[in-house]
Formats: sequence, structure tokens, C-alpha cells
Amino acid sequence: LPERPGAPVEKNRLTCTFLSFHRPILVHNPHLDGLKDDVLYHFSLGTETHDLPAMFGDVKFVCVGGSPWRMKSFIEYIASVLGMEDPKAEYPNICAGTDRYAMYKIGPVLSVSHGMGIPSISIMLHELIKLLHHARCTDVTIFRIGTSGGIGLEPGTVVVTKQSVDANFLPKFEQVILGKTVMRNTDLDPGLAQELLECSKELNQFDTQLGNTMCTMDFYEGQARLDGAFCSYTEEDKQEYLHNAQKAGVCNIEMESSVFAAMCKMSGLRAAVVCVTFLDRLKGDQLTSSHDILNNYQQRPQILVGHYIKKHLTHKKDS
Amino acid sequence: LPERPGAPVEKNRLTCTFLSFHRPILVHNPHLDGLKDDVLYHFSLGTETHDLPAMFGDVKFVCVGGSPWRMKSFIEYIASVLGMEDPKAEYPNICAGTDRYAMYKIGPVLSVSHGMGIPSISIMLHELIKLLHHARCTDVTIFRIGTSGGIGLEPGTVVVTKQSVDANFLPKFEQVILGKTVMRNTDLDPGLAQELLECSKELNQFDTQLGNTMCTMDFYEGQARLDGAFCSYTEEDKQEYLHNAQKAGVCNIEMESSVFAAMCKMSGLRAAVVCVTFLDRLKGDQLTSSHDILNNYQQRPQILVGHYIKKHLTHKKDS
Repeated sequence: LPERPGAPVEKNRLTCTFLSFHRPILVHNPHLDGLKDDVLYHFSLGTETHDLPAMFGDVKFVCVGGSPWRMKSFIEYIASVLGMEDPKAEYPNICAGTDRYAMYKIGPVLSVSHGMGIPSISIMLHELIKLLHHARCTDVTIFRIGTSGGIGLEPGTVVVTKQSVDANFLPKFEQVILGKTVMRNTDLDPGLAQELLECSKELNQFDTQLGNTMCTMDFYEGQARLDGAFCSYTEEDKQEYLHNAQKAGVCNIEMESSVFAAMCKMSGLRAAVVCVTFLDRLKGDQLTSSHDILNNYQQRPQILVGHYIKKHLTHKKDS
Repeated sequence: LPERPGAPVEKNRLTCTFLSFHRPILVHNPHLDGLKDDVLYHFSLGTETHDLPAMFGDVKFVCVGGSPWRMKSFIEYIASVLGMEDPKAEYPNICAGTDRYAMYKIGPVLSVSHGMGIPSISIMLHELIKLLHHARCTDVTIFRIGTSGGIGLEPGTVVVTKQSVDANFLPKFEQVILGKTVMRNTDLDPGLAQELLECSKELNQFDTQLGNTMCTMDFYEGQARLDGAFCSYTEEDKQEYLHNAQKAGVCNIEMESSVFAAMCKMSGLRAAVVCVTFLDRLKGDQLTSSHDILNNYQQRPQILVGHYIKKHLTHKKDS
């Protein structure tokens, strides 16, 4: 590992400061200052046991996704895109002390898995935001790359999320605090979304659309699937619900975007959600496409985000 | 693997039919009958690609828990408890084709990981219930073994859940279906809970209590922790909330029990939640105990459930 505990962040690495001001990572918790040691339990990291500024101070891009395998393959892909791959290198899992999440890093790019569903990504984001804060990172851009069910889109289409909406198509996230529900905004960065659409045009490899993403608490009944263990509605009920979603601008459905948008906004992270659609939910529920086809689809958000990161790092090197 | 595709379930294996009637696994979905192939996507299994009755027809006990490592160590532990271990055996991950969940089996015992939070365990349970249904299993008992924060209990205490309650201490689970909220009952099997308490007395290795378990959507703000990235309340607010929970009979807090109770009840699975407490939340928020101590605590639900399973299988062999 190039990082040595206690060593300052090396200045000759690829870094990205294309913005003219420095945005810190905001925590909103006065209690953190009083903690002697902050144990990031689900990462198996901590402020007393690890030199977080040395390990992570140069991070400018964070990419998160559900599957640990996909997040490892993302860091390998990014290494090749940035010409930073070392043929001998195994990319070590920085969170090897736990099986809750997996984390990989190359240069200014961090890749972290988050499991499935709002609670799972929420735990990860609390600890990631604290990690970036403790590491004194600035100007960080974060992407969720994921898979989703599409509504009325050709399978394989990539959706960049405009707004994350709930099961009633409303752009809000409900956070329960001490038993009371607090509403949080699910806006994502519109400029970043536009830049990603431009990247897709430049790549010209697959269709990318801007649209609303519905974030649900459940994959089966919560997404109107007919193939769960329980289903109390008809095909017609399902079609009516999904068509209503479509009328409200929903292009795809997944399970993490709302809390991701809310927490990133609160902490000052520029954030985007980039999900490929695995199937058209108006036509079916089951994932019956071949492994090779799904694998190809799954790489599209990686390719899009990889192109964005490369563009910004190359721009910086040239300037 | 002893199972051969197409082979009937062998009758001379350890099986458990201590109940005098046969309870099937109930799905409540008329659409399933019309499916030619049922792809259990997040398990990487399916009815056309796998002979589920041959692979799983003899399952009588299912044990689920968040961490894939823990569920592997559980199957190794159960193998030794039941005297079924093969020194040469590696217990293969039955879901090796995916990284969403891990699944292990020995004799009539199945061990499955479920990740963190309600949505993650809910996806797993939909597919598990369908798997047990397709495999024509009967008389299945299911345990969630997990970790939790205790309220007013000595760390290391095991809690067997009486009722799973929400963040307002009410025994219900809210399932959103087609945008509408449906309330579901979170009762667990009272007889099974009593049997587990008796097992703990027989073991006499650690304290086990019966109590309510609060199930939250979030580990930090949702559990009144002061050490998340965001915290808008005071230590006094936190103490008031946790003391109110204690007055309502809440002994511990975790993130999966409500949907587990609701779905198991709907599908006719006898179910219990057995969680060890890692810390007393009235005294702190951070998990600062040593790895060895937490590891010892983590084994307690395994030991308790292992004792229960052994008792019932031995009873059957003797009779």
C-alpha cells in the first residue's frame, strides 16, 4: 500500500481540484468533537487505530453500489481507465476486518459497497461521511452506481436520477428520529446529472436518460411485483400503479436513492445516482436475461462514471 | 454434496418430525402457480435450474443472521454439535453464484445471511419462503440470530424477543403495497420463545431474557445514537427516548425483527428472534469492546439455538 500511517498525503498523486473553492465534508453533530476515538464499526476503522487523513485525504471521487463484487470490479476498471493499474496489484479490501461492507481505493477514487436497501446504505453513509470528514477531504463527488427495474425503457438503458421519489411519487425521504418522522429533501446535483448525460453522448455506447427514480422499501410487494411469496393484487392493479408512476416521471425503481440523496445533500457531497435498468417492469417481473447480458448491462454505470472521472482528472493534469 | 439432483429426500438422514401434524410453508400468491420457472434471483437459484425438493426437502431448521461470516461459522458449529462434521469438509456456499446472500446447509439445518435492515432481510425472506415452498418442506422452525444494542442490560445478555415493536414501541410492521401502507402483526411464537429460555437454563452459560425488541430503520438517528454523521438532539433527549422504550418493555434494539416476525407468521413458519446485546445503550453508543469479547458475545445466540436444535433432533432419534 502506498499509504504509510502518519505520512502526509503525497502531492504528486493524481488529484482533482477543478472547482475553484474548497467544499469540506459537513457533519452536523456537535457530539463528535467530544469523542476521543471515533470507531467506524461497520468499516472496522477508527480515528485512534487508523490515520484517516493519510489513508483517505486525497479522495475526490467516491463510488458506491450494492454488491461488493461489483465495487471491486469498479476499482479494477477505474485503475485501467486512469492508467494506474499495476499488473501485480491485488486491490486490497480496506474493510477486510468486517464482512458488512467492502472498500477499495486507487488514487483519488474510493469504491464502497452498501448492501441492499435504505437502512443498509444509511449505516454505510453515516460512517463514510464521518470518514471523509475525519480525513479532511474537500470537493468530493459521489456516485451511486446500481441496477434497477425500468418503466417503459429498453432493458440496458442507463437512468441518471433527476429526483428520487417515494412509493407515492413524492420527492422526500422520511427519517425517523426519536420516534418522530422528519422529512428530508432528495434533490441531487442537477449540474452533475447534465455532465453525466454529456459523457454518455461522448461515449455513444448505450442509451442514457434523465428521469425520476422511485426508491422503495421492498423489492416484491413494494415494487408491485407479482412473483413474491405474497401478492394480494392483480396484474391490472400492478399495471395501473406502474403507469401512474410513469406519468409522474418515474423511469426506474431501486431501493437506496432517497436516503443517498438526502444524506449527501446534508453533508455537502455533490451526488448522482446512475442505475442501469435490467428489465422493463411493464412487461415482466423476473430477471430471466442471461448472466452475460445482465453482466454487460451492469458495467454501463461503471463505464459512464469512469468516463466522467477520467475527464476531470485529465483536465486537471493538463491545466 | 450428498444431494443428487432428482433423488428423493433420503429417509435415513437426521430428520425432525416431533410435531404430530405437518405444517406446510404457505405462500400467498396465486400468480406463482402460473410461473414456468421461478428464478430466485438473489440466491442465484431457480425451479428450472435446480432440483429444490432434492436440495432442500429435508430442511426442518433455518437460521438467519446479518453477517455471511457468522452464518458460515454457525453451520460449522451446528455440524460439530450434531456430530455431523466431516474433518475434510468445506461447507460450500449454496449461493456462490451471487454475493447478495450466503447460504449453507448440513442435514436438516439451513443457514442463510440476510444483510442489514428490513429491506435486505425482506428480499431474502421472500425468496427463502418460496424456496421452502417449492422444496415442499414441512414443520420448519426459523431463528434469527443477531446482535443488538441493549437497554439496561449487562452487555452479553441474550434477548429472546417477545414482541417486535417499532420506533414508537408499537407491535406492528408497516408494509407499503402499491403506495398504500398495510399494517402487519409482529407476533412471534410464544411456545418457541419459552423453550429457548429453558434451553438457556439448561446450558447455564449466559443470561437470557424474554423482552420486546425495537426494530428501527436506521442505526444512528433511528436508534438515538449521538455518534452518527448527523445528530440534532441532546444526550437528555436520547436518555428520555431510551427510558421510554424501557418502560414499554423494550430490552434491545436491532433492525430486522419486525419484518421477520410478520413474514414468518404469514407463511406459517414457527419463528424466534435471538439477539445478544453488544453494549448498554443507556451508558454509551460506540462499540468499543475488544474483538475477542464481541466475538464471544456473538457466539451466544448460536450456542442457544444449537442446543435447541440438538435437543429436538436427539429426541427424534431416540423415539
